[in-house]
Amino acid sequence: MGDSNTGGDWLEEVKWDERGLVPAIAQEHDSGKVLMVAWMNREALRLTRETGHAVYWSRSRQRLWHKGEESGHQQVVHALRLDCDADVVLLEVEQRGGIACHTGRHNCFFRELQGETWVTVDPVLKDPDAIYRKPRAPHP
Amino acid sequence: MGDSNTGGDWLEEVKWDERGLVPAIAQEHDSGKVLMVAWMNREALRLTRETGHAVYWSRSRQRLWHKGEESGHQQVVHALRLDCDADVVLLEVEQRGGIACHTGRHNCFFRELQGETWVTVDPVLKDPDAIYRKPRAPHP
Repeated sequence: MGDSNTGGDWLEEVKWDERGLVPAIAQEHDSGKVLMVAWMNREALRLTRETGHAVYWSRSRQRLWHKGEESGHQQVVHALRLDCDADVVLLEVEQRGGIACHTGRHNCFFRELQGETWVTVDPVLKDPDAIYRKPRAPHP
Repeated sequence: MGDSNTGGDWLEEVKWDERGLVPAIAQEHDSGKVLMVAWMNREALRLTRETGHAVYWSRSRQRLWHKGEESGHQQVVHALRLDCDADVVLLEVEQRGGIACHTGRHNCFFRELQGETWVTVDPVLKDPDAIYRKPRAPHP
């Protein structure tokens, strides 16, 4: 930290959890829709700022995950925000392809509670098999 | 779980973390603004559905936190959504008083990254001393 060339200070203002991560919310900048939530470590947040594209930390793969690296559905970052406790990051993004979710839907919050049932209320826009080169697990 | 009277099944569909919690995003239903992120346990989510008002789990106080219990700034829930991995909840809410943040701002994401600096870009709408009966820490 403290390396002014890499902007270490702004990264240190974030309150990373015991794993060195914070949740990151991607919100579509024009529609206001919440697209997805993933996790970032310092390097992911640094790269997100540098490249202007969302980079997350994949907890299951334990590696950096350049959103859209397989699908082409990159997220172009319009703004980065930090909350009052400095432990959640909000990204205002443009979602390439209009699909953020690995299920082929616009966003990941496609289930709504109706009575006591989670009901899928948003359609699949594109078959995941046509999006990804190979079968894949949920969020990497 | 499995008690149909309390809707145990829909609560069990949520993937609670090792602490029995999930992050919950509160989004203003009309403006689309992301207001805040807090945590819920099963009881908080159950009560949120039952009462129609956001109830969170305070990690610092280790107790249920009825949003607005001190400030009066309750969140009236219009919809509850669950993401593809079932490990994040999204609440579409009406924010009473128009203030979600304990700093007296509309929402908690009032800092924006400009260059390599987090800059406060949203105003305080009401002095926190006038909102709360006694001085308080950040998010309970």
